[in-house]
Amino acid sequence: MLPSAKGWLAVAGLWVAVALAMPASADAPVVAKVSSPGEVLSVEVTTDGDGRLEYRVLRQGRAVIETSRLGFILADAVKLERNLAIIGVVASNHDTTWEQPWGERRFVRDHHRELRVQLQEKTALARRLDVVFRVFDDGLGFRYEFPAQPNLAQANIVQELTEFNLAEVPVAGAKDEAWWITGGEWNRYEYLYQRTPLREVGTAHTPMTVRRADGLHLAIHEAALVDYAGMWLRRVEGTRFKAVLSPASSGPSVQRAVPFNTPWRTVQVAPSAAALYASSDLILNLNEPNKLGDVSWFKPHKYVGVWWGMHLDIQSWASGPKHGATTAYTKRMIDFAAANGFRGVLVEGWNEGWDGDWFANGETFSFTKPYPDFDIEWLAAYAKSRGVHLVGHHETSANIAHYEAQLAAGLDLYQRLGIDAVKTGYVADAGGVKARGADGKIRFEWHDGQVQSRHHLHVVEEAARRHIAVNAHEPIKDTGLRRTYPNWVAREGARGMEYNAWGEPKNPPEHEINLVFTRMLAGPMDYTPGVLSLRGRGDTRIPSTLARQLALYVLIYSPIQMAADLPENYARFPKPFRFIKDVPADWAETRVLNGEVGDYVTIARKDRNSDDWYLGAGTDEDGRTLEVGLDFLDPGRRYVAQIYRDGDQADFRTDHQFDVVVEERPVARGDRLTLRLAPGGGQAIRFKAR
Amino acid sequence: MLPSAKGWLAVAGLWVAVALAMPASADAPVVAKVSSPGEVLSVEVTTDGDGRLEYRVLRQGRAVIETSRLGFILADAVKLERNLAIIGVVASNHDTTWEQPWGERRFVRDHHRELRVQLQEKTALARRLDVVFRVFDDGLGFRYEFPAQPNLAQANIVQELTEFNLAEVPVAGAKDEAWWITGGEWNRYEYLYQRTPLREVGTAHTPMTVRRADGLHLAIHEAALVDYAGMWLRRVEGTRFKAVLSPASSGPSVQRAVPFNTPWRTVQVAPSAAALYASSDLILNLNEPNKLGDVSWFKPHKYVGVWWGMHLDIQSWASGPKHGATTAYTKRMIDFAAANGFRGVLVEGWNEGWDGDWFANGETFSFTKPYPDFDIEWLAAYAKSRGVHLVGHHETSANIAHYEAQLAAGLDLYQRLGIDAVKTGYVADAGGVKARGADGKIRFEWHDGQVQSRHHLHVVEEAARRHIAVNAHEPIKDTGLRRTYPNWVAREGARGMEYNAWGEPKNPPEHEINLVFTRMLAGPMDYTPGVLSLRGRGDTRIPSTLARQLALYVLIYSPIQMAADLPENYARFPKPFRFIKDVPADWAETRVLNGEVGDYVTIARKDRNSDDWYLGAGTDEDGRTLEVGLDFLDPGRRYVAQIYRDGDQADFRTDHQFDVVVEERPVARGDRLTLRLAPGGGQAIRFKAR
Repeated sequence: MLPSAKGWLAVAGLWVAVALAMPASADAPVVAKVSSPGEVLSVEVTTDGDGRLEYRVLRQGRAVIETSRLGFILADAVKLERNLAIIGVVASNHDTTWEQPWGERRFVRDHHRELRVQLQEKTALARRLDVVFRVFDDGLGFRYEFPAQPNLAQANIVQELTEFNLAEVPVAGAKDEAWWITGGEWNRYEYLYQRTPLREVGTAHTPMTVRRADGLHLAIHEAALVDYAGMWLRRVEGTRFKAVLSPASSGPSVQRAVPFNTPWRTVQVAPSAAALYASSDLILNLNEPNKLGDVSWFKPHKYVGVWWGMHLDIQSWASGPKHGATTAYTKRMIDFAAANGFRGVLVEGWNEGWDGDWFANGETFSFTKPYPDFDIEWLAAYAKSRGVHLVGHHETSANIAHYEAQLAAGLDLYQRLGIDAVKTGYVADAGGVKARGADGKIRFEWHDGQVQSRHHLHVVEEAARRHIAVNAHEPIKDTGLRRTYPNWVAREGARGMEYNAWGEPKNPPEHEINLVFTRMLAGPMDYTPGVLSLRGRGDTRIPSTLARQLALYVLIYSPIQMAADLPENYARFPKPFRFIKDVPADWAETRVLNGEVGDYVTIARKDRNSDDWYLGAGTDEDGRTLEVGLDFLDPGRRYVAQIYRDGDQADFRTDHQFDVVVEERPVARGDRLTLRLAPGGGQAIRFKAR
Repeated sequence: MLPSAKGWLAVAGLWVAVALAMPASADAPVVAKVSSPGEVLSVEVTTDGDGRLEYRVLRQGRAVIETSRLGFILADAVKLERNLAIIGVVASNHDTTWEQPWGERRFVRDHHRELRVQLQEKTALARRLDVVFRVFDDGLGFRYEFPAQPNLAQANIVQELTEFNLAEVPVAGAKDEAWWITGGEWNRYEYLYQRTPLREVGTAHTPMTVRRADGLHLAIHEAALVDYAGMWLRRVEGTRFKAVLSPASSGPSVQRAVPFNTPWRTVQVAPSAAALYASSDLILNLNEPNKLGDVSWFKPHKYVGVWWGMHLDIQSWASGPKHGATTAYTKRMIDFAAANGFRGVLVEGWNEGWDGDWFANGETFSFTKPYPDFDIEWLAAYAKSRGVHLVGHHETSANIAHYEAQLAAGLDLYQRLGIDAVKTGYVADAGGVKARGADGKIRFEWHDGQVQSRHHLHVVEEAARRHIAVNAHEPIKDTGLRRTYPNWVAREGARGMEYNAWGEPKNPPEHEINLVFTRMLAGPMDYTPGVLSLRGRGDTRIPSTLARQLALYVLIYSPIQMAADLPENYARFPKPFRFIKDVPADWAETRVLNGEVGDYVTIARKDRNSDDWYLGAGTDEDGRTLEVGLDFLDPGRRYVAQIYRDGDQADFRTDHQFDVVVEERPVARGDRLTLRLAPGGGQAIRFKAR
């Protein structure tokens, strides 16, 4: 609804500046404006002389995003870009708090102002489009909404024209930097992060994290990627980026019947790296509430598994003498889990299909037939008798046509056996995701295109129906859909621990620090930490200290956390192993105490099921000493800090990497701790409430 | 054919290093190597441990292109990348000289060595692929050839995996720079060139020009783009670039029945900017010879037209009181052309369809019906009586479905009237090129996708059948197809003179210098120089001196050159206008005397129809003095140099931009000239043989 006079319009406590057209200048543009609840961020939306939709974002009056275009190129209709008029502006205030079934924190506040800008083409087509901004103090999201209309029944979107024209603020001696991985590649997100000047970004996946020369931190990502193609960021020139939609192998990137909404394009804006991490709540806030109802059947937990041995090449997925998933070995793993309090036992290589060239998208896998030496029925019953749950595994070889045909049967089997979590896999080394089109033809699709966005949700919904949680590897990126589908509990989607088992390069110490401020902005990652043996295949050194392996359980959040190492290795390190047994996988609260992207980070989290707090700290290849104040501890409580720290000689490059000191001291809120981190090191602390 | 022993293989005078597999290591890779005729450049081709095809390029032993991958992603089959084995290597020498019907030089030497590497998959699919390198002393081309085979009848190419991993050679105080325009945009190539560090390139159109820190100059482009999607260059990270194929609105980027060959991917490598320009002969050499036979019916020429007045907004394309294409005005233009020796008279806005929103891809245009106030029959006859030819105009509004339906009739009309050249236009502001697919549906296509590559050649072939030359505006890029289709005489495909008529920014002085070393590497451009009035719409200043407008006729090559200004403006400048009347549009020889990309350039060309030489020089916003030796002049001849130079006060920023000195002096081979160029200035010289 367009206000009827030029000037400022107060709607529900916020200001919307609307410069209305005077009769004498019917083409003068409307400017719609909204500020965040604390007046930190503001957004202006208008149209240019050609009727092209534009927005810009300011933080405390200074530009964050300079004037940037919006719109669409369509495959079979005139593009939605020019000749748009703002025909209505609706603003509203929102302040709610909702509870997560599990997460980094129990309660999430959703405090934002919304600005809906209604547009219509001035041409005969008269197509309609809304763009909706939700502005928080620490970021914003916007999406396009296509209302039902006569001249646009189907949107066949070739590309978005969405721009992010990042403002530069020159500071002597400093420059804008970005942390990013390459978008536009066919397969997976498993790269080391590049740290480059912002002007040296090429095409990036999201989240892309930026530290501006003046210290402002930004991250661009998306929320609620549902039935749409994933967005890459292409740097056009200077610091101007443009959305690129992951392609489809046949037809436009996105095909949707109108009405529909796009995902939210998100920009987190924070004064520090620590605040940037915290600002990720907006990703969840922009997703729809839980659609599954009571999800208490999913229990956040830790798990062990028949897995690391394959990556060490001492076991195999395939059948034969090295086959890992045998009844006998799995029984031992169940016993190990039961003895140490791990709920889950993942077993990879349990099913037929691993013999031969399985990563070539073949139709090799059965999702119901175990290998003869894996007695799944007996093992499931035995696990149950020990209070443990098998964790299922569906490697699809990225042949989703093949997988979908067996999906129901595979999940039915798990449901019957009490297997209530499944790790899926989409290794696609033969050319992307093999999918069957509406025309019945088989084609190869991008791992983050519309087809795969649909597939993942299809699996999650089928699993939810059977009360099964999903942990997708080689997945589409996380966009906060765990809020809507809380059984989508974790995923991979970055370079994980297995690269430390393989050859060079392994994950350098800065990689895990980078993850916290990039990949982890999107949501939980099944990084599979806890390799206390610090050795990969062929006895190669993993670039970490032992204490750091413990810290990862706090630093890299997931509601399912693996203790990835072999049981015999944990037996060698009983004192550090204690932390892995203690640390929970579900949190009431999370605080980032300090950090710099790529350098170091310290995070404190409070257990959701006790009054204990936990702390994890990690550094890059440089050792460093961090002072932290224990202001997060509950007032009036006394704690014992159970400290797992790098020994004085610890160094990720030498055998002193195993030097770890385990010690206790009483602490209380307001105390200060000095964390001495070795090169490639870390520290883990349990603050046990007394 | 694979040589039968490990070692070096001499084939026709060149060395092919072939490290053959020993029986004990059947998987050891073959390395195929070839050097250019003068041993300047060398190329090595091999496969890596996963059977992925790789190449690298060295110049005098130093890397130009580091190891770079090759291959394809296919929409409906396993990608062509891994598990490739080299099953044959064929090398050959080539040294021929061929004559151009018209061009920058009459005779072109094609001196290269060819290396054909035959590949086959080691998997059951056993698909075949050849990669063919042609290596010159100043650059190379390579292409993929798909032979007929049982398991690949149709190639549906989603993307190429072709990489250009440019070697960096650190030099203190210098860095690698690139000149580029943004690729990945929907529409046209009409941008100012960006000059950035090589590591700040995003996604670029080709040709992309690079000056390495050590002074080596490179340009990456393609040759013989036939029935294929145009290639963009996406910087992946650092200085590693990857080919990106322009998309199709429906389906994979390229759909081709096997057998077929891709375009040539070209890399020009030269020690200087001047040598880089000269190295462009390889673009022509990599194209197929003339398929049209005798093309003497095309006469290189200059033309005037009903055009600049529209851009000044004193005339209109549309009907009405400002209509430019009237019988009376065109007759005046014919008289002006006849009086001054111009062969052609272009008339835009002659046909019905210009009234209303014509740039919105509508079906507005008739290609046979003139406006009632344009008597095309009488004018064509009158022109003929004056020894002049009308130049046709087909603005398609990028609706090629509509255009193709009328193409034959439109060209038939021109043929009947003796109109033997047509300027086509593809203004596509509504969403790309509107085309009809094989399924009969209308879709919007990229301006440089496979559909448009087919369309352009279709028009050129239809025109050739009627002995009509084609000058495409808003075209697909030039890849040297003028060799095969010599009636494709020129095109736009860059920011032309009309931007100087419009608002800001106009073309800054460096733009035309940039064009010489970027866009002009690809082929002739219809830049439409010669605006001696130096004024755009609303009396705005064009950033050029007067002398520079003359120099453009030598600097920016085209076999058709417009004298773009209004006749009444030429009447104001009779002495400088003399050069425009004198300068030919066809050359026997071309020499670049000096230059730096983006800064300045001097080119000398010899008239193909006399013994006269011509020289053009231009500079950016900085005035400068250039010394040139007249070593290019024919030995033993005496010349009068008719010099058109900037006056002492000349400056593109002031009204002294009109200061021009016209003077004569006798010169001979070996003399030296001092060229004083004003800021934004230039110099033009005719060396009239006596």
